[in-house]
Amino acid sequence: MKSAVSSLVSSKYPAISRSLLQHASKPISQRTFFIPTIPRNTQNLYNQRYQKLQIRPNSTSIMASSFKPEQARAPTAFPLPTPPITKFKIGLCQLSVTPDKERNIGHAQKAIEEAAQKGAQLVLLPEIWNSPYSNDSFPVYAEDIDAGHDASPSTAMLSEVSSRLKITIVGGSIPERCGDKLYNTCCVFGTDGKLKARHRKIHLFDIDIPGKIAFMESKTLTAGETPTIVDTDVGRIGIGICYDIRFQELAMIYAARGAHLLCYPGAFNMTTGPLHWELLQRARAMDSQLYVATCSPARDAAASYVAWGHSTLVGPFGEVLATTEHDEEIIIAEIDYSIIEQRRASLPFAKQRRGDLYQLVDIQRLNSH
Amino acid sequence: MKSAVSSLVSSKYPAISRSLLQHASKPISQRTFFIPTIPRNTQNLYNQRYQKLQIRPNSTSIMASSFKPEQARAPTAFPLPTPPITKFKIGLCQLSVTPDKERNIGHAQKAIEEAAQKGAQLVLLPEIWNSPYSNDSFPVYAEDIDAGHDASPSTAMLSEVSSRLKITIVGGSIPERCGDKLYNTCCVFGTDGKLKARHRKIHLFDIDIPGKIAFMESKTLTAGETPTIVDTDVGRIGIGICYDIRFQELAMIYAARGAHLLCYPGAFNMTTGPLHWELLQRARAMDSQLYVATCSPARDAAASYVAWGHSTLVGPFGEVLATTEHDEEIIIAEIDYSIIEQRRASLPFAKQRRGDLYQLVDIQRLNSH
Repeated sequence: MKSAVSSLVSSKYPAISRSLLQHASKPISQRTFFIPTIPRNTQNLYNQRYQKLQIRPNSTSIMASSFKPEQARAPTAFPLPTPPITKFKIGLCQLSVTPDKERNIGHAQKAIEEAAQKGAQLVLLPEIWNSPYSNDSFPVYAEDIDAGHDASPSTAMLSEVSSRLKITIVGGSIPERCGDKLYNTCCVFGTDGKLKARHRKIHLFDIDIPGKIAFMESKTLTAGETPTIVDTDVGRIGIGICYDIRFQELAMIYAARGAHLLCYPGAFNMTTGPLHWELLQRARAMDSQLYVATCSPARDAAASYVAWGHSTLVGPFGEVLATTEHDEEIIIAEIDYSIIEQRRASLPFAKQRRGDLYQLVDIQRLNSH
Repeated sequence: MKSAVSSLVSSKYPAISRSLLQHASKPISQRTFFIPTIPRNTQNLYNQRYQKLQIRPNSTSIMASSFKPEQARAPTAFPLPTPPITKFKIGLCQLSVTPDKERNIGHAQKAIEEAAQKGAQLVLLPEIWNSPYSNDSFPVYAEDIDAGHDASPSTAMLSEVSSRLKITIVGGSIPERCGDKLYNTCCVFGTDGKLKARHRKIHLFDIDIPGKIAFMESKTLTAGETPTIVDTDVGRIGIGICYDIRFQELAMIYAARGAHLLCYPGAFNMTTGPLHWELLQRARAMDSQLYVATCSPARDAAASYVAWGHSTLVGPFGEVLATTEHDEEIIIAEIDYSIIEQRRASLPFAKQRRGDLYQLVDIQRLNSH
């Protein structure tokens, strides 16, 4: 039991307990709370102005119950925000990827244009769509997104096309160079062509299934430091990249921050794809009662890493709304956010959780107050 | 934003923050920690003797990382305990249920005996196997489990047969009367015939899918107050009843307490069954990397509540190992706990979680220290 003992002991000093401690040490009447306003089109929830609020000791919960459902999330979950649009089309571009970066960029641009022509107001690209997926390629194909323009032709294209077509683009991911570090990074562009959010994959893909698949992204890549949720013209979108989808906590904190849709660019492989790709998407959508969209590269059987394909849109009951096999394809499918509220009215998990028994803490949101 | 503001404010005083506060207000060197020992065959984790431990300020984590994976669970997750047995057979008895209670008890007994004869060392029964599933029936069929014997013929049978056959029984569930309250209760009997644990359904089944299915268990039943995990001769088992499976947090805290297997007796219906029954089981098994077993009543199309059936065993990759349709059946399937460690070595989630970004708190385990 020695290891159990030492691991329990270390749990006594989580980051969160210090934060709660500092806060709770003042009398209630003297505490101040910073409550984020949630405007449309902000870069992400952390870049927002905050509204300072002095609370009264007697303020009460909106969902009083002896089971404290509102305490199952800390901070308490946001109610689902009213999206700028209720019904719209999403385009999932399952693209072939080659070693020719210029071709990849032009090819992605054509696919985005085709999706937009077919009515898509939101376009999702695959994980690592401008480069082969390999630790050898990442440093070679990486771009300095902050420098932009010639230093980042991939994101320059995304910016130009989103602005020209007046669509939102969740730009899959590309290898990003920042100083001496490399990231696996998803850029979100608004209808004005501006970079609205940047998600750096926070759970690196380090797995080893003997005889099947082994990969260690951490050999070359650095993990991101923050979850990414962004208000766009097509709703509030939480971003994860591939292996991020395996960590249910990330989807849970996005849901608690009011996400309508989770987008996961992802290149699962021929082992984990058939095992878990659809299951993960359906589970995240069902448990958090929101839309989940995924986008994979098309399969290239000759590549060193063979992608599973099967880009998919899943509805808030965990139902597959649109999907495909492994070849190149542009999936156009309809999202209707009013369904989210219907599903949550039918199965009212938010009121039924047992905040007296468990609590999921969103550490950065808590600390930002 | 008014409702978001008041809900955020209420989140500032979760039960957990007070507990952490009281604890953390002492200097580290003066704090004492009560670490549970985890013997075999204890009633549950809360009925155990505790080992008092004075820690040193410099004690370090077993999994040091800047991402603090060990802090993704509070208290820190237990390592997987060594089970008393690695490979064994489980029997899932998908039973028909009638309004004749005496027949139901005799019928269940015969099924358990058949499962044991076929080699099952663990037998799982359905949710509400001694009574029709209806709010009208629960008060009529309820038994006083504490009084035992004639006051609880259903559990008396389970005790007798588990002792006689030297098997562990996770006894599905029955309506339980305790004072003026009714519960939906699962009793676990050890190979000695003793009641090892009792789980009272903690998430009551209150749903309304218009035109499809509406049910309000809370009209007659009271929700249980505690998660239930129990060390048996066939491993550490976390218990949930039906709707409990929808709350991923429960499975997560069982996994963090070292469960090998989650057992969910459950009577999903003709709407939620095809939508979610298998998906939920596979998701819980995949995300927590452990075995999940479910057991439903057989379908009776003439009943007021028509059960979906489809009792299932799922392995730690989320793979269906054994299942059935909706008729009566006794599923015999093999469990091999060594697979859990293989899966966790291949996909080492416990080392990859981002305790710097999210933390799931098991409130009763934390408060019990």
